[in-house]
Amino acid sequence: MKPKQILNAASAILSLALVFSPLATHAQAQGTRSIWNIPSAQYPMVDDQGRATFKLTAPNAHSVQVTIHKTTYEMTRATDSVWTLTTPALPKGFHYYFMTIDGVKTIDPNSQTFFAYSREAGGLEIPEGSEGDYYRPQRGIAHGQLRTIEYYATSSGTWRTAIVYTPAGYDQSGNHRYPVLYLQHGMGEDHTGWTRQGMMQHIIDNLTAAGTATPMIVVMESGDINVPKKEKEHFVEITKYGTSFYRTFIADLVPMIDSTFRTIPDRDHRAMAGLSWGGHQALDIVVPHLDMFAYIGLFSGAVYGLDVHKNYGGIMSDAKTFNSKLRCFFIGYGTDENVGQTKLRKELDDNGIHYTPFISQGTAHEWLTWRRCLKEFLPLIFKSK
Amino acid sequence: MKPKQILNAASAILSLALVFSPLATHAQAQGTRSIWNIPSAQYPMVDDQGRATFKLTAPNAHSVQVTIHKTTYEMTRATDSVWTLTTPALPKGFHYYFMTIDGVKTIDPNSQTFFAYSREAGGLEIPEGSEGDYYRPQRGIAHGQLRTIEYYATSSGTWRTAIVYTPAGYDQSGNHRYPVLYLQHGMGEDHTGWTRQGMMQHIIDNLTAAGTATPMIVVMESGDINVPKKEKEHFVEITKYGTSFYRTFIADLVPMIDSTFRTIPDRDHRAMAGLSWGGHQALDIVVPHLDMFAYIGLFSGAVYGLDVHKNYGGIMSDAKTFNSKLRCFFIGYGTDENVGQTKLRKELDDNGIHYTPFISQGTAHEWLTWRRCLKEFLPLIFKSK
Repeated sequence: MKPKQILNAASAILSLALVFSPLATHAQAQGTRSIWNIPSAQYPMVDDQGRATFKLTAPNAHSVQVTIHKTTYEMTRATDSVWTLTTPALPKGFHYYFMTIDGVKTIDPNSQTFFAYSREAGGLEIPEGSEGDYYRPQRGIAHGQLRTIEYYATSSGTWRTAIVYTPAGYDQSGNHRYPVLYLQHGMGEDHTGWTRQGMMQHIIDNLTAAGTATPMIVVMESGDINVPKKEKEHFVEITKYGTSFYRTFIADLVPMIDSTFRTIPDRDHRAMAGLSWGGHQALDIVVPHLDMFAYIGLFSGAVYGLDVHKNYGGIMSDAKTFNSKLRCFFIGYGTDENVGQTKLRKELDDNGIHYTPFISQGTAHEWLTWRRCLKEFLPLIFKSK
Repeated sequence: MKPKQILNAASAILSLALVFSPLATHAQAQGTRSIWNIPSAQYPMVDDQGRATFKLTAPNAHSVQVTIHKTTYEMTRATDSVWTLTTPALPKGFHYYFMTIDGVKTIDPNSQTFFAYSREAGGLEIPEGSEGDYYRPQRGIAHGQLRTIEYYATSSGTWRTAIVYTPAGYDQSGNHRYPVLYLQHGMGEDHTGWTRQGMMQHIIDNLTAAGTATPMIVVMESGDINVPKKEKEHFVEITKYGTSFYRTFIADLVPMIDSTFRTIPDRDHRAMAGLSWGGHQALDIVVPHLDMFAYIGLFSGAVYGLDVHKNYGGIMSDAKTFNSKLRCFFIGYGTDENVGQTKLRKELDDNGIHYTPFISQGTAHEWLTWRRCLKEFLPLIFKSK
C-alpha cells in the first residue's frame, strides 16, 4: 500500500468516528462541562451560578427548545448554523432534559443517555460543592462491584436483568454472608437508574468505608414500570401499574438472589426501598410480607390515600404489632415536592405507627432528593438488635 | 384526599412517564419489533425479508431521513403527522442508525441507545434464525456475570471503568484461578460495546457450557478511542490514536485485574483481542509484550502497512521465535469489507509468520462479523500444551 492508499483505507475506518461527530468547540466556554456530556462534547456547560449553556448545530431547523423537567426554554440562533441557550440558575443535582427540533422531542447529541420517561433521555448535572462528596468516588477506600445478572423468570416466561451491588471485600470474605437491600427506581426509569443518575455505588462505598453503613448486597431490578401508562387510565388501574413485578419479585428474583449470592435469607437481613412509584411498590411488597422484610424506605414514595384499617387487609391497624415487626420505616422527601407525604404521615401519626422522617431541604421530585434519602436510610438498616 | 384529588396527585406523578411517550401503535404491524426497541415501542419492525419499517411522529418537520451505517433513506409523510419508511432488505445482525430531523442527526425516540461514532446512537437488529443461537441466552446452562469496575488509574490521574466477565461458577470455585482475555471494541465505541451489541456474555456462556471454550475472565475497557479524531489528521497522527491507552493498560489495568480477580498472571494464560481499531491496539500492545501474552485476535483489525522487519523493533522478523511465542494469532474478517487483511496476510505469509484465518461469509465491517470472530477465537485460546 502506498501512503495515499493507506490514508484512504484509514480514513474509511476513521469515518465511522467522524461522520456524526457532535459540536465540540472550546470557544466561549461558560463554566465547566457537565459530567454527563459525551467525552468529546464541551457543551452543555454549567457556570458557578448553576446556569447551563447549550449549543446545537442546526442550520435548517426552524425552532429548537430545551426541556428540563417541566420547563421549556427556547434556543436562539447565535449564527446561521448554531443555536444557543443559557438558562437561569437551575437547582443543583441531576436533571433529565430533551431537545425538541421542529416539534420532535429528542436527545441533545452532546449528552450521554439515561432511561427515563419510558425512553432514552439526556442528562445534566448542576454540581454541588463538597456537600456532594458523599456520592462521588473516593480514593483510598475499598470499593464494591456492580454485577449485571440476566436471569430467566419462570413466573413471566421472560429473561430479565438485575444489577447487583456486592460490597467491598465480598470476593475475599470466604463464607461470610450479607444482608440484602432491594432498591427500586421510579416510574418510566429502569434498573440502571440507581447506578447512573443515583450514584448509589459511591454513596454506599463511602458510608461503608466510614463504618456508618453495614456492608450489604443491593439488588436493583426493573420493576415493570418502564412502559408508559395511557393518559386516561383511571385511578383503580393506576394502582395496578407495575403490580406484575410483585409476583416475579417473590417467585423469581428473591430466590435467584438468595441462591446466587451469600445472603442472610431472613427478615432481619432483608430490606426494600424505592423512589416515587418504586416506593409505592416497596410498600405493596413489604407490608404483606413482614415475614420476609424488617425494613422499608419510601423516597418520595407515591402513596396516595393510605387507609391503615382498610389497605393490606388491615395489617397496619394493629400498630403495636406492626411497629414491632418493622424495625425501620423510613419516609424521606424534598421540601419542594408534594407527593402526598403530609397526608401519609398524618395517617400514620393518627394511628400510632412509627416511622423515621427525613426532609431534604430545597429539593423536589428529583435525584438529589433520592441520593440524600439513600445516604440517610442506609445507616438505619441491618443494625444489631 | 378525595378521589378527584387522588387522581390529580397520581396524574402529576404519571405525567413523568406520559409527556414524552413515543409512538407505539399496533396498527399496520410489519413483521416483529426489533429487539433493541425501548419496551413500549412497536417500531422499528423487521419483516421476514429483513426489511425494516420505521415510524416517527413529526407534524412540523420538513424532512426526515434514516441513516443505517453509510446509507441514508428518506422518510415520507404517511399522514399529516406520521412519517414512515420501509427499507430494502438489510444485512442480518446489528446495525447502528440515526434519524436526521431537518438536518439534525439524532436518535429515533423508539430505540435504545448504544455508544458509537463517539456519541449515542440508535440500534437495529435484523434477526438471524437458529444460526444466531450462539449469541442468545440459553436456559438450562450456567451463566457468567458482568461486573462493572470503577478504578483510579494513576498513570492518567483519572477514574476509569472496566467491564469484567467472570465465568459461571467463579463465586463457588474457591481458590481456582482463571486465564484472562482482554477484549477491545472499535473506534468511536466504548467499554459497553461487547456486552450490548456484541452479546459476548451469551457467546462465551454457550461455548463454555458446551465445553468448547475454557472458562475464563474477560476484561473490556474503553481504550481511549471514544473521542472523534479530526478529519484532516494525517496518517502519522492516526497511528497515535488511542496510544494513551497502552500505558494505562500496562501500568494500571492489568495490575488491577490481577489483584482484584483470581487470574493466572502469566503469558500462557493471558490473551488480547480487538475489533477494527481495537485490533490495531491489540497488536500494538501484544507484540512488544510477548512476555505477558501468548494469544492475539484481530477481528477486522485496522492494521495498515505492517512491515515485519521494521515495525515493533523487528520482533516479528525472526519468524521462528515469534511463532513459538505466539500460541494463537487469529485474523478474522468479513467477505464484504476491506480493512487491509489481504495485504496483512500476504506480509505474514511472505515472512513465514503463522496465523489462523477466519473469513465470515456475507458480512462486512459490522458486529455480526465480530460476534462470529469471537465464537471462532475463544476455542483456540488457553488450551493445554
